[in-house]
This record gives sequence, structure tokens and C-alpha cells, in this order.
Amino acid sequence: MDKRLGRYTVKFSQPPVILATAAVVGPKEGAGPLRDTFDLILPDTYWGETSWELTERKMLAEAVKMALEKATLKPEEVQFLLAGDLLNQTISANFMASQYGIPFLGLYGACSTMFEGLSLAAMLIDGGFADHVIVAASSHYGAAERQYRLPTEQATQRPMSAQWTVTGAGAIILGARGQGPRVTMATVGRVLDLGVKDAADMGGAMAPAASDTLVRHLQDTGRQTGDYDLIITGDLGKVGSTLIGQLAGQNGYQLGDNYQDGGLLIYDIRQQDTHAGGSGCACSAVVTAGYIYQELQGKRLRKVLGIGTGSLQSPTSVSQGESIPGIGHAVVMEA
Amino acid sequence: MDKRLGRYTVKFSQPPVILATAAVVGPKEGAGPLRDTFDLILPDTYWGETSWELTERKMLAEAVKMALEKATLKPEEVQFLLAGDLLNQTISANFMASQYGIPFLGLYGACSTMFEGLSLAAMLIDGGFADHVIVAASSHYGAAERQYRLPTEQATQRPMSAQWTVTGAGAIILGARGQGPRVTMATVGRVLDLGVKDAADMGGAMAPAASDTLVRHLQDTGRQTGDYDLIITGDLGKVGSTLIGQLAGQNGYQLGDNYQDGGLLIYDIRQQDTHAGGSGCACSAVVTAGYIYQELQGKRLRKVLGIGTGSLQSPTSVSQGESIPGIGHAVVMEA
Repeated sequence: MDKRLGRYTVKFSQPPVILATAAVVGPKEGAGPLRDTFDLILPDTYWGETSWELTERKMLAEAVKMALEKATLKPEEVQFLLAGDLLNQTISANFMASQYGIPFLGLYGACSTMFEGLSLAAMLIDGGFADHVIVAASSHYGAAERQYRLPTEQATQRPMSAQWTVTGAGAIILGARGQGPRVTMATVGRVLDLGVKDAADMGGAMAPAASDTLVRHLQDTGRQTGDYDLIITGDLGKVGSTLIGQLAGQNGYQLGDNYQDGGLLIYDIRQQDTHAGGSGCACSAVVTAGYIYQELQGKRLRKVLGIGTGSLQSPTSVSQGESIPGIGHAVVMEA
Repeated sequence: MDKRLGRYTVKFSQPPVILATAAVVGPKEGAGPLRDTFDLILPDTYWGETSWELTERKMLAEAVKMALEKATLKPEEVQFLLAGDLLNQTISANFMASQYGIPFLGLYGACSTMFEGLSLAAMLIDGGFADHVIVAASSHYGAAERQYRLPTEQATQRPMSAQWTVTGAGAIILGARGQGPRVTMATVGRVLDLGVKDAADMGGAMAPAASDTLVRHLQDTGRQTGDYDLIITGDLGKVGSTLIGQLAGQNGYQLGDNYQDGGLLIYDIRQQDTHAGGSGCACSAVVTAGYIYQELQGKRLRKVLGIGTGSLQSPTSVSQGESIPGIGHAVVMEA
């Protein structure tokens, strides 16, 4: 049976259910506007570990553990674990996976990882290959800054277009059966590289790919932006979320009051001095596992189009003078 | 419809067909025993580029292009491109993907990437979400050495347990219909970490995970090792391929003459001074896209169990004193 809708979108015949979610965040995120939507707020950025890399891994493992507990599932009842993160060779995900013994599919989608994972997980379940799949993603400001940019101890001044990597981890369990919001469609992203070379302007680099996915999704489904209660991008921040509005407009689709961006929701960007807003794998992961899931559960939102956005550069490619490719994966979630 | 067989294995209801493959390799691989199975052998390790990172990316793009041509498919006829590599943030795959406009799912499975991708691609096709999926993976000795270990210019002596990262790229196109060998089953790997800390003994770190997958596959299917014409691991090399025999034996399964390892096939390890054998994402990718595919096409092999093996450390985790987790993804290919 062909489950495709238009050229790029898949529509699930038996839409997988979001059975449980968990969101663990750092103290800065826990002081932000979404503080009440998180399951656990760390007291400090180390959480008893000796390195930020170990802290990130512990958050990711904790998010998976909490989601399993909420769904009252044992690891052996889950067929696949899909996870990824920003650290070189995705070590947070790999080491976390060694704790659970669940067959593991490692992803690299940068900050889009949660949405890449949700797309794949829904296909694996609707395809008949699994009853339960966990998707998880993490990032840590301290670990990401020293890997991607400069040691935080150096206290380099950041331009206003720079974003703040979210410290946190999110886990979402999809199931073939059960009660809860459902994943009804997915539109997988294409990599677009329009030549942006400024690693301190990731929103600008990601916006064209996010707009491309949004437009392809709306064309495939014949929908308008107003058909969704909420269209939310992962972490375009202030620069990128303005740009996606312009790009979508050029394609005949207007983004209105029902458009938001996870990177702008998670911090009070002026009070918390996070410049253009949040970013990192954890940004879309914890906003989706927390805020979006709770709004869908409470039926305050009924139809959400989430677009996880990823900036696909590395310090190697940036230092070799390369531009920054972007991607955006879209998933429809319905109450 | 449930397509699971036992606890860990999936069995495809309409097994996807391997429509075309392409293997591009460097000069050292082109001088090895499998030289006649490759599509293109580079004249040198740069291939006209100014860095090994750019060479790797060019090989990966070329392998995808050649596979598309052989299958007489245009990029727009392919629903998903799944790819990954060893470089930080998988830049080879990301930048390559920006050239094709095919919806892209980025993977990180280290040297197991081709088999992680084949498992997923077969599920996406058999699940009804795609007619055509490309899987691709690459590595480059020069780029990998300087990222993972030491600059090659330093000419550090390598221990005999060390492996040689294959310079190359492989691409495989799976289709829902057509003629050719078929992917009939997959058993996704679990991450095992038995505490091996020597980054110059990756075979030893990967063997337990490969054995775990082999044993789970045989238990799920009720098969014996002798039911396969060939059981081939990706890149365990000399140390790891001895170890997997011992570990499988302890579980009651004997590996005999029908067992081989891609890392030992690709080089004449004594003459070519590659110590314990080949490794890297390209190792299992080009051995599968070249040798295995051709043997299946020629019906000299009819039933092959391939286990892509991955060593999931990073320079960060190694320098922080962490051990090396391993993974192995199994796929059954039948003529």
C-alpha cells in the first residue's frame, strides 16, 4: 500500500500515538517562560558530573528513563531507539543507548534530530515493524560552545544573531495503539545550502530549508497555513523566523499569528540575554516533549505542524571556508 | 500487519530489490584483492581537491551519481536519501545531500552506517513509504586519521591491532519492484560497551556487539550459521574476527569457512601493511556495493548475512577516558 501524499509527504494509515514524553532541562531553561512544562530542571549545569559531556549523556538517559516510566513500558517492550545529538560522533546518544539494550538507530540531523526521529519512528510503526519506538535528542550549552565555537571561559562577545544552545534532553515514545495525540503526516527535509557562511547566524542558514519543507508540505496536502492551530519551527530564532515568513510569502503562503518558533519560546530573550534565541538538538526536543505535547493533550491545540530545523555545519567545514547547509523535517501532530 | 520475526528481527513482506550499486575507492584499495569489483579507483588521495574532506565528499557524490545512472533513475524519482560518514557532524553526507534535492535522513552509525541505512531503507520501502531509496556512506584515510588520531605527517607508529580506514564511498539503491538480489530480513544492532578503551583496537571493541546481533538473528530465525552461503562482518579486522568466532561459539553457534570479514578482504594485509585490516564507513559500503552485490548478481552466492559493524567512540570520549561502545546491524541479502 502506498502511503504517499503528493510528491514529498507521507500520510500514516494508522497514525502512531504519542504515548509519553519527558523533558529534562538546565537551570537557564528552567528559569524561562516554559519552565512549567518541563519534567526536571537541573540545579546547575554539571548535575554532579565532572564534564558537560557526561552531564548531557545523563540528561538524555534520564529523559528516556522518565518517558519509559510514564508509558509503563520496559526497555524490552520497545523495538527501536532512535537518538542523536550535536557532539562529535554523537557520543551522547551512543553511550546512552548502551544503558538500555534496545536496538538502536543513530541519527545525525543536528537541531532537527527530534523531528527526523519522529518521522522515521512513525514510519517504522505504521509500516508494521514496531509497536513502540523511542526518539530522543540532547544538547548542552557548555559542551556545544567549546566544540563548535570557543571555550566559554574565554567570554568572547557574541553577535546579536547568535543563538544559545539549549541545555536539555527530550524523549518521546510513539506507539501503534493507545490514547493520546497522533502523528498523522511527515514531510522529510531536503538539504539546502544558499551560501550563508556566518556560524553565528544559523537561523539565516536554516530558514530556506525550513521554508522549502513548509511549502512542499502545504502543496502536497493542499492545505493553507491557517489550517493549523500552530505552525512551529524548531530553532530559527529571531533572524531565521523573520526570514521564513518572507520566504513562505514569496511562495504564496502567509505565516500569521499561528506561527511560532521554539527558539523564541524557550527563553525570554531580552531578560535572559540569549540574543537571537535558543538552538541545539534539545531546543525542539524539549519544546515538543513539554509545551506542544501538553497543549495537544489538553486539546488547547488540535492540529500542529512542527518543523525541526537543523544547521549542518561542523567546525571543520566552517574553518575550511565552507557555507552552512540547512534542513527542516516536518511532522503533523493532532489531538 | 506485523512484520516481526522473533523478538529482534524484521522480515519483509515484499522484499526490496537492490536495483544498482556503485563503489568508488582510493588508490590503496584499488591495488588490493577486490580491485576488479570497484567502479572507480582514484589516481591519488586528493582527486583534484584541496583537502581530504573535499575528496571524501566528492567520492560520495560520485557514488550516488553512478548508482542513479546505473538504475536509470533521476534524483526526483527517489523518495529518500540516507547517508552518513565518520567526519564530525557527518559533513560529507550533509554537503553531498545538498547537491541532489532528495529528502535526506542523516545517519550516524560509524562504520556500520551502510547496514543501518539498508535496514531503514528496506523498512521504508516495505512499509509503503517509498519506491526508491538510496543509501550511501564514505570515509577517507587522511581525513579520518587527523580527526580521530594523529596527523599523518607525524608518521606515528601504529600497533598491530590498529586498522586502516578505507578511502572510498559506496551507494546502494533499493527499489520496491524490479530485478536483482533482495533484502529479505534485518536485525538492528544494540549498543554494547564491554569496557575496551584502546582506540587502536576497534575490532575488539566491536566484536561483542557483532556477535550479539548474529546470535539474536539466528535465534529469531531458527537458522544455523550453515544456512548462509556467506556470513560477513563489516570491518572487525584480524583481532575482532577471531573474537566474534569465540563469542558466537560460547553461544552455541560455530562460524566456519563461510565466515569472512570485509576488513580482511579489502586489503592484502601483509603486502599492503594495513596491520589488522580495513575499517571506516567505506569498508562495508564498498565491499557490499562491489564484491557482495556482484556475487549475488552472478548467483555465486545466494544467501548472505551481512553485519555492518561500528565503533562508536569519539576523540572527545577517548581523551576523557571513556571506553568504546560497539554496534552491529545485520541484513539478509538473497539472490
